[in-house]
Amino acid sequence: MAKSKFEYVRNFETDDTCLRNCYIVVRLDGRNFHRFSEQHNFTKPNDNRALGLMSRSARSVMEDMEDVVIAYGQSDEFSFVFKRNSTLFRRRASKLMTHVTSQFSSSYVFYWREFFGEQPLLYPPSFDGRVVLYPTNHNLRDYLSWRQADCHFNNLYNTVFWTLVQTGGLSTAQAEDRLKGTVAADKNEILFSEFNINYNNESALHKKGTTLIWTKQNETVTKCIKVSNEEEEKEVSVIRSRRRVQAHYCDIIGEQFWDEHPDILEDDAH
Amino acid sequence: MAKSKFEYVRNFETDDTCLRNCYIVVRLDGRNFHRFSEQHNFTKPNDNRALGLMSRSARSVMEDMEDVVIAYGQSDEFSFVFKRNSTLFRRRASKLMTHVTSQFSSSYVFYWREFFGEQPLLYPPSFDGRVVLYPTNHNLRDYLSWRQADCHFNNLYNTVFWTLVQTGGLSTAQAEDRLKGTVAADKNEILFSEFNINYNNESALHKKGTTLIWTKQNETVTKCIKVSNEEEEKEVSVIRSRRRVQAHYCDIIGEQFWDEHPDILEDDAH
Amino acid sequence: MAKSKFEYVRNFETDDTCLRNCYIVVRLDGRNFHRFSEQHNFTKPNDNRALGLMSRSARSVMEDMEDVVIAYGQSDEFSFVFKRNSTLFRRRASKLMTHVTSQFSSSYVFYWREFFGEQPLLYPPSFDGRVVLYPTNHNLRDYLSWRQADCHFNNLYNTVFWTLVQTGGLSTAQAEDRLKGTVAADKNEILFSEFNINYNNESALHKKGTTLIWTKQNETVTKCIKVSNEEEEKEVSVIRSRRRVQAHYCDIIGEQFWDEHPDILEDDAH
Amino acid sequence: MAKSKFEYVRNFETDDTCLRNCYIVVRLDGRNFHRFSEQHNFTKPNDNRALGLMSRSARSVMEDMEDVVIAYGQSDEFSFVFKRNSTLFRRRASKLMTHVTSQFSSSYVFYWREFFGEQPLLYPPSFDGRVVLYPTNHNLRDYLSWRQADCHFNNLYNTVFWTLVQTGGLSTAQAEDRLKGTVAADKNEILFSEFNINYNNESALHKKGTTLIWTKQNETVTKCIKVSNEEEEKEVSVIRSRRRVQAHYCDIIGEQFWDEHPDILEDDAH
Repeated sequence: MAKSKFEYVRNFETDDTCLRNCYIVVRLDGRNFHRFSEQHNFTKPNDNRALGLMSRSARSVMEDMEDVVIAYGQSDEFSFVFKRNSTLFRRRASKLMTHVTSQFSSSYVFYWREFFGEQPLLYPPSFDGRVVLYPTNHNLRDYLSWRQADCHFNNLYNTVFWTLVQTGGLSTAQAEDRLKGTVAADKNEILFSEFNINYNNESALHKKGTTLIWTKQNETVTKCIKVSNEEEEKEVSVIRSRRRVQAHYCDIIGEQFWDEHPDILEDDAH
Repeated sequence: MAKSKFEYVRNFETDDTCLRNCYIVVRLDGRNFHRFSEQHNFTKPNDNRALGLMSRSARSVMEDMEDVVIAYGQSDEFSFVFKRNSTLFRRRASKLMTHVTSQFSSSYVFYWREFFGEQPLLYPPSFDGRVVLYPTNHNLRDYLSWRQADCHFNNLYNTVFWTLVQTGGLSTAQAEDRLKGTVAADKNEILFSEFNINYNNESALHKKGTTLIWTKQNETVTKCIKVSNEEEEKEVSVIRSRRRVQAHYCDIIGEQFWDEHPDILEDDAH
Repeated sequence: MAKSKFEYVRNFETDDTCLRNCYIVVRLDGRNFHRFSEQHNFTKPNDNRALGLMSRSARSVMEDMEDVVIAYGQSDEFSFVFKRNSTLFRRRASKLMTHVTSQFSSSYVFYWREFFGEQPLLYPPSFDGRVVLYPTNHNLRDYLSWRQADCHFNNLYNTVFWTLVQTGGLSTAQAEDRLKGTVAADKNEILFSEFNINYNNESALHKKGTTLIWTKQNETVTKCIKVSNEEEEKEVSVIRSRRRVQAHYCDIIGEQFWDEHPDILEDDAH
Repeated sequence: MAKSKFEYVRNFETDDTCLRNCYIVVRLDGRNFHRFSEQHNFTKPNDNRALGLMSRSARSVMEDMEDVVIAYGQSDEFSFVFKRNSTLFRRRASKLMTHVTSQFSSSYVFYWREFFGEQPLLYPPSFDGRVVLYPTNHNLRDYLSWRQADCHFNNLYNTVFWTLVQTGGLSTAQAEDRLKGTVAADKNEILFSEFNINYNNESALHKKGTTLIWTKQNETVTKCIKVSNEEEEKEVSVIRSRRRVQAHYCDIIGEQFWDEHPDILEDDAH
């Protein structure tokens, strides 16, 4: 058959199995989202509709791949952490990263209306993805801390920048100039003394980003049960434990979050 | 700053640059599309709306990444071939495959209505992707031939199978039984002698799949030109050469297609 | 200059940096050593000259690459474990494995005479190497346990096999037959009841293989020191701490060895 | 059995199969050979004993791995080119590079005496290796041209440098200064006008390096043949074709060498 003559080309595929016993992180980043956000009139410095849609799409990924133990997102990026010993897609990096990216991207369009209502999506957006491996809990937590520190750093900058522009009446060039060389304390001070804004009181979602984890919830469901020696079925209330994705907007750099959720990470000693 | 303390985690990323001077193929496959096609009532053996949507999404990928020199699709899969010396995303495999997958997936949802009208998309679909490298023109053409031979093989089977079921009144189990052990000639014979169908007359789209390439077209556009010594602008007709994606439904295994389109592949001797 | 025209070929080299914070293991295996050992009349089941030469060559590797924290060898194989955060050769897998293999191979020929005296080396032997990464102490210890369990398993088999042949007068085929299907206890029993050999009393080197680690030793060295206000130099005894490679022939599967040498492995929590 | 409990660690090994239909090049470089050559009193600018030993060791590699179609060496480096479709060691990069490096290294020590006679080898030398893939004949020839251009460039420099020092009486620092900023023509001119040396007449081995290829030779061997109906054996002369490694010291950048040896490279069109 003609088929077999060409089939040797399959052997050009390479194996990209992820090293065992490492956390597999898939991180997505929006492509050209600066332009995308302008064309879709995202509010500055943060657009809650857009952040909600990112989060909704991330939940769609987690519900499809239950081996994701935690996901963290901010701005136009989202990271998905697969459990250390996941064997999903036989740990093949390309399958993992493309599937996450695909599910996220199609969800972003699918759920657009839920967050943007009648405002139309002008063209299909795109995200790129990558896989990074982390061998220990320490490394993985440092990865998540890195992303959350980045969120904090950018959000503080953006909050001051857009306050200077929107409330202070500066041009964007003037605001940029004003912030050149300032450190965090300087920025807090500008907000407080000039605009009477306490950064600490800003939205946790904006300061801390979104952390998605699994949580077990008890649901009461009604089941029809056939009692053996009776003709008719009986309705019975049954309590079922169900895993659900839950969003947190809190610090994940310190110990508290991890102490409260000891099941997310596995012990290194395995 | 807290940021830098964590930043070492970036060094855990690995380099996955594709070998130079090889064709880079990204192939996408629908995930669980058997179930997806049933839930969305795809007609059997082929659903032209679904094939059109695949093709439309593939065009969206090509228009976004002009280094794709040819794309080939059939059923729920599509392959994109990047030119041999593309430096897009610095040839990083993960960037290439996730970006293609993302653009394709978001386009699939975005353009759904164009092909399915009021029939709703029930949930966001997902595709997985992979990268394969081919060093020579010979290998690349064998890859494309492999996919087209696969298209032919499956379409012939599906055509007979669904004819036996839809017209012949067999159950799917009976049709499967009937086709066990048959070769191409047997299947052609069943179609012809029992159902008066000449497989050669079936739709080229179904038999050959979809091949997308770039073509240059001359467009006449109207431009407003300000003539220097006059107050008013003048409308002028200008002929502009523009690259467009063009679909072909023909054989790409033999020489004819390649003879007619000598610019798709570069000479090996470079 | 003609040179630069060709230099683009360097870009075809790929990066093969080992994932950070993992133990890097390079394992060597003798190529065709069955034949090599016969041609050089190695005594059966173990040849102490050959084992000594393996060990000497491994020491040569460790002394050249001080980031090796432990090495384990048995039969014609040797494993070298680089410390978790080694940056030797920028963690490039190919550099690490070829350098270890090269140093080992040239040492094997160089030191041959020290172990085999006048018996000539008939041809240059060859070893192949590979790199394997282990993310946690647990995994690394399981790797070393795997190799030592293999040593035990093979040595017990070989000890009984060659006792049956050399003392028991069986042919090799008969000995093989006799041992088919036997478990460890059976083999111990054959040795004890038929040949009055207690396997536990066999050489630790043969039963446990060779474990090389670094140890600090104080050396008294004589130094010539010029005292400033005197014409002549004075000899002074100075105690210097020096790292040396030390061989152990003990169990490394249980806790004792690791409790006694707590510095070999780093804590996972980093 | 205890063995199996640990055996999971095998799964941490990764696949490093080389892309099919590419030339596999393994290049070796001497480690710290500047120091090695000084300690072993290599003559400057070239030591024919050392070059001969490199070449002898390379031959040992080729004879062991017949899939090497051409090898090229200069100074303390040697490159081995495996045929495009070699399946040796299932194309696993680590096996290929470590085996070449090992065979070369042990040969270097083994054959030392053949080239250095009574001058002792002071310690076991080491080489590192790497694998690079080249998809086309054009790329492969550019690789070899790159190495030969490098040989030429270095040898011209070294020839002038050491002539200035050894004959001209300059210090090494003065010679270095003298050559700063000079191009090839300047260096040729210094040799010719000041020392009456025509660089073109220098040794081809030094100017062009060593190219090893396979050549078929007819050998007349004497065989003892038992004639069926006679008691005694008869000696018969038989002509046997045998592949041998042959050294060339010629230009491999231009076409002539390749025209004369059309069998080294396979056509790209496969």
